[in-house]
Amino acid sequence: MLTFDLAPKSKMPLYMQLYSFIKAEIESGRLKKGEKLPSKRALSSHMRVSIVTVETAYAQLLAEGYINSKPGSGYYVEYSQPVWEEAESAGNEDKQENKDEAAIIYDFKTNSVDTADFPFSVWAKISREILSEGSRELLDSCHPQGVPLLRMRIAEYLRAFRGMDVSYEQIVVGAGSEYLMGLMIQLLGRDNAYGVENPGYSKIYEIFSANTSRVFPVPMDSKGASVEAIRGFGINVLHVTPSHHFPLGVVMPISRRMELLGWANAKADRYIIEDDYDSEFRYSGRPIRSLQSLDSNEKVIYINTFTKSLAPSMRISYMVLPEHLCKRFSSKLGFYSCTVPVFEQLTLAKFMGGGSFETHISRMKKIYRQRQHIMLEKITEGGLKDIVTVSGCEAGMHLLLTVDNGMDQNMLLFTARNRGVRLYGLSSYYSFPVSDMPQSTVVAGFSGLDGAQIIKGVEALEKAWLI
Amino acid sequence: MLTFDLAPKSKMPLYMQLYSFIKAEIESGRLKKGEKLPSKRALSSHMRVSIVTVETAYAQLLAEGYINSKPGSGYYVEYSQPVWEEAESAGNEDKQENKDEAAIIYDFKTNSVDTADFPFSVWAKISREILSEGSRELLDSCHPQGVPLLRMRIAEYLRAFRGMDVSYEQIVVGAGSEYLMGLMIQLLGRDNAYGVENPGYSKIYEIFSANTSRVFPVPMDSKGASVEAIRGFGINVLHVTPSHHFPLGVVMPISRRMELLGWANAKADRYIIEDDYDSEFRYSGRPIRSLQSLDSNEKVIYINTFTKSLAPSMRISYMVLPEHLCKRFSSKLGFYSCTVPVFEQLTLAKFMGGGSFETHISRMKKIYRQRQHIMLEKITEGGLKDIVTVSGCEAGMHLLLTVDNGMDQNMLLFTARNRGVRLYGLSSYYSFPVSDMPQSTVVAGFSGLDGAQIIKGVEALEKAWLI
Repeated sequence: MLTFDLAPKSKMPLYMQLYSFIKAEIESGRLKKGEKLPSKRALSSHMRVSIVTVETAYAQLLAEGYINSKPGSGYYVEYSQPVWEEAESAGNEDKQENKDEAAIIYDFKTNSVDTADFPFSVWAKISREILSEGSRELLDSCHPQGVPLLRMRIAEYLRAFRGMDVSYEQIVVGAGSEYLMGLMIQLLGRDNAYGVENPGYSKIYEIFSANTSRVFPVPMDSKGASVEAIRGFGINVLHVTPSHHFPLGVVMPISRRMELLGWANAKADRYIIEDDYDSEFRYSGRPIRSLQSLDSNEKVIYINTFTKSLAPSMRISYMVLPEHLCKRFSSKLGFYSCTVPVFEQLTLAKFMGGGSFETHISRMKKIYRQRQHIMLEKITEGGLKDIVTVSGCEAGMHLLLTVDNGMDQNMLLFTARNRGVRLYGLSSYYSFPVSDMPQSTVVAGFSGLDGAQIIKGVEALEKAWLI
Repeated sequence: MLTFDLAPKSKMPLYMQLYSFIKAEIESGRLKKGEKLPSKRALSSHMRVSIVTVETAYAQLLAEGYINSKPGSGYYVEYSQPVWEEAESAGNEDKQENKDEAAIIYDFKTNSVDTADFPFSVWAKISREILSEGSRELLDSCHPQGVPLLRMRIAEYLRAFRGMDVSYEQIVVGAGSEYLMGLMIQLLGRDNAYGVENPGYSKIYEIFSANTSRVFPVPMDSKGASVEAIRGFGINVLHVTPSHHFPLGVVMPISRRMELLGWANAKADRYIIEDDYDSEFRYSGRPIRSLQSLDSNEKVIYINTFTKSLAPSMRISYMVLPEHLCKRFSSKLGFYSCTVPVFEQLTLAKFMGGGSFETHISRMKKIYRQRQHIMLEKITEGGLKDIVTVSGCEAGMHLLLTVDNGMDQNMLLFTARNRGVRLYGLSSYYSFPVSDMPQSTVVAGFSGLDGAQIIKGVEALEKAWLI
C-alpha cells in the first residue's frame, strides 16, 4: 500500500501533506492511470490518520482532476502525465515545442539508439552472475582510471577492431564522454586555445564553453577540419571526429590526418582529441587508421563511448591517454574517484570478454546498414530522386539530404513537419555562422525508426517537397 | 574465432602481423594457458590468408615459447601472464610503499566504509527484480537531473530525517560529490572567489583548484569557518561542512549558521555550499537544522552522498538547488546527461522506498557508535588517559587525539608506525599552514576496524607513546 512519511508537527495540515504525496506519485508516473487507490478506511488505518484527513485529501485530488471516483467501486487515478516524455523533453529543452507538434509521427532524430535490439537477457544474466558472486570488489572503490579488467577488455577490443596498440594503463574510464571531456580540459589546462569543428555536435561546443573561455569554431573543408583555420586562430588543442564527421559525414582522408599530426608535432603544447564516437558503425570503404595509431609523438588523446554501441542509460566512456599524460593524470587528477559504478564496469567487462559485445555490434551494424539502405533506396529510386542529393553515407546513423526544389532549409523543415515528419536543419549544428553554409540541406537520422517507418516517412517527404 | 584487422598494404609482412596479434592476445590473458588455437587451415580460411602465413606465424610463436604443439592434436597456448595480479598491483599504486610498511597492522584510515555490513543480499534481490522486469527504462537515457522516482525518494528522506522541505525538482543526481562540485562551479561561474575550510577534506581543495583559479583557505575558529576571514578574502561562494567539520569535528552552532546566512544574504552573488557528507552518523546532542532549511533567500546549495552511507563503489551523490538555480541549471547545463546509470538509480530508489536504506543507516550508526565508544573508553580509561585528549566525538567516523607526552606530530606518527599503527597528522589536512596549527594532534578513523582491532591498536599506541 501507499506509504508516505507524514510529519505531524509540520505547519502543513496532514490532509495537505497526504494530497501532495499522492499528487507527486501520480505526476511522477509511479501511480498509473486507471490504478485503484486504497479505500479511505484502509489508507486511514495504514497511515494512522483520521478518515476525514484521507477524505479531504481525496476530495482535493478529485477536484483537481488527478483522480476520479466510480460509485460503489472506489477511487482511480485519472490524470496521467507521460512522465518519461516529460523527462526527455525537459532534457531536450523543447517541451513547449512538443505541445504544438502533436502531429510528429516520424522523428528522424540523430541521437537515437535502438534499444529494442539490445541483448538485455545476456546482459541481465551476466549482471545476475556478478551479483550472486557477491564479491566485496563490488562495494569497494576502484582504481581512479577504472576497474583494470574492463580496461584490459577495452584495450583488446581496440587492438582487434581498430588496430590500436594501447596498454590498459593508458585507459581512463568515466561516466560518459561529456564527463571525460571536462576531465581532459582539467588535465591539459583551461588556458589552452581549444578548437572544435564547425559545424559539429553541439554538445561538444557547449561542453568546451562551459569549461574554458577559449573555444574557436574551426570551419570544415571537403577533407575535414581546415588546418589553415586552426593555425589562424592560434589553436593548440583540437577536437575532431575523423572517422565520421558529425553532421557532415566526412571521413577524414589519410592526407588530412597526416597534415593534422604534422601540425600537432610542430609544437610541444599541441594536442588532438580524436573523438571516435560512432566508428563501430561503418558501412562502406576500407577503415582508415585512427589518428591515435598513426601518432608516434604522444599527441593524440583518443575518446570513445559505449552510449551509442550499448544503450544511452549506461554512462560508460573511455579515453586513451599518451604515456606522458597518463603520468600527469595520476599526479594532477588521481584524487578523483572513478565515476562509473564497479558493478557496471564488471558487467561490461564480462560482456566484452564473452564475445557478446562483438556479436551485438555486428548485429546492430547490420540493422543500421539495412535501415540506411532502405532510406537511400526509397530516396534515390522514388519520387524524390530528381530533387534530393544524399551525402554522408559511409558510416553513422544519419544522412544529409540536400534538396533542390526551390525551398530553403526552414521551408523544407516546415513543409515536412506539416506532413508529420521531423528533420533537423544543418544550420543548427553551426556554433558560428559561416558564409558558405548550405541553404537547403537537412539532417535525417535513421537509427530510431524501423524500415516501414522510414519508408512511410520518406513518402510523407515526397508529399511535402514535390511541388 | 580469433579475428584481427590485417593490413595487407602494411610494410609489416602478414605473418608478422598475425604473430603480433596472437602474441598480444596471449600476453593480455585473453588467450589463456591450455587454450586450443584454431587449426592452421581454419585460421587461414577465416582470415583469408595463405596457410603458409599462418604456419610461419605459429612457428615463430612456437619458437618463442608462447604456444606448444601436441602432435596429432593441434596448437595450445603455453605462456601465461598472471594478468589479474599485475592489474591489481598497478591499481594500488602503493605497492612499493607497502613493501616498506609490511608492519602496518592497524590502519586508522578516515575514509573507510565498512562494506562487510552492507545488506548486499537485499540490494542484490532488488537489482534482480529490476533486471527481471527488463523495462526499456533501463536502457533509455533519463532526465538530466536523474530518474524522478529516485529524486522523490531523496526528497522524502530529507523531509523525514533532516526536516528539509524540498521538491524532487530541485534535486540533481550525479556520479559522486566530486563530479557535482565541478558541475556546481560551472553553474555558479569560474570567476567567483571560492572559500574552503582550512583545515578541511583535502579533496575539496583539490577539486576547487582544478576547476577554478580563485580558491581561498578559510581558517576555523571554535564555531567553524571564520566570518571575518570570509569577508577579508572577499569570498562570495563558501564551501562548509556544518554538521560535522572534517577533520576537526566541530558541529557549527546555530549562531554561526545564522551569521553565515546573514553574510550570504547581504549580496546577490553570495552562496553557501552546505556539504552534509556524514550527517547520517551523529551520535550525541540534538541535531541542528541544516543551513538549507534555515535559508529563506535561496542562498544555500545542499550536497550529500551515498558513498559513505552505502558503499564507495556506488557513485551516487545529489545536490539540492535553490529554485532560481534550478532554472539556471536547466538552461545553462541541461545539455549534460545524468552521469549515474539508470539501473543504479532505480535500485537505490527501491532500496529507499522499501525502508532498507533507513534500516541500514540506523544499523551502521549503531556499529560506528559502538566502535567509537570502544575507542574512547580504551583511551580515556586505559594507559593513555593522562596524556591524550580526545575531541570531535559528536559525529562521524574519526576522532582527534591531542597528545601531551612531549612528542610533536611527526614523532607521534613515527612511533605509532613502529608499533604497526598508522594514524594521520592533522597538519596534512591544512591546504595552507596557519600560525596556531596544533603541534601534537593526530587523526584516527575507526570505521574500518572492528572492536578487537581498535583495542589492540590503542594498546600498541600505549606502547608507542608512554615513555
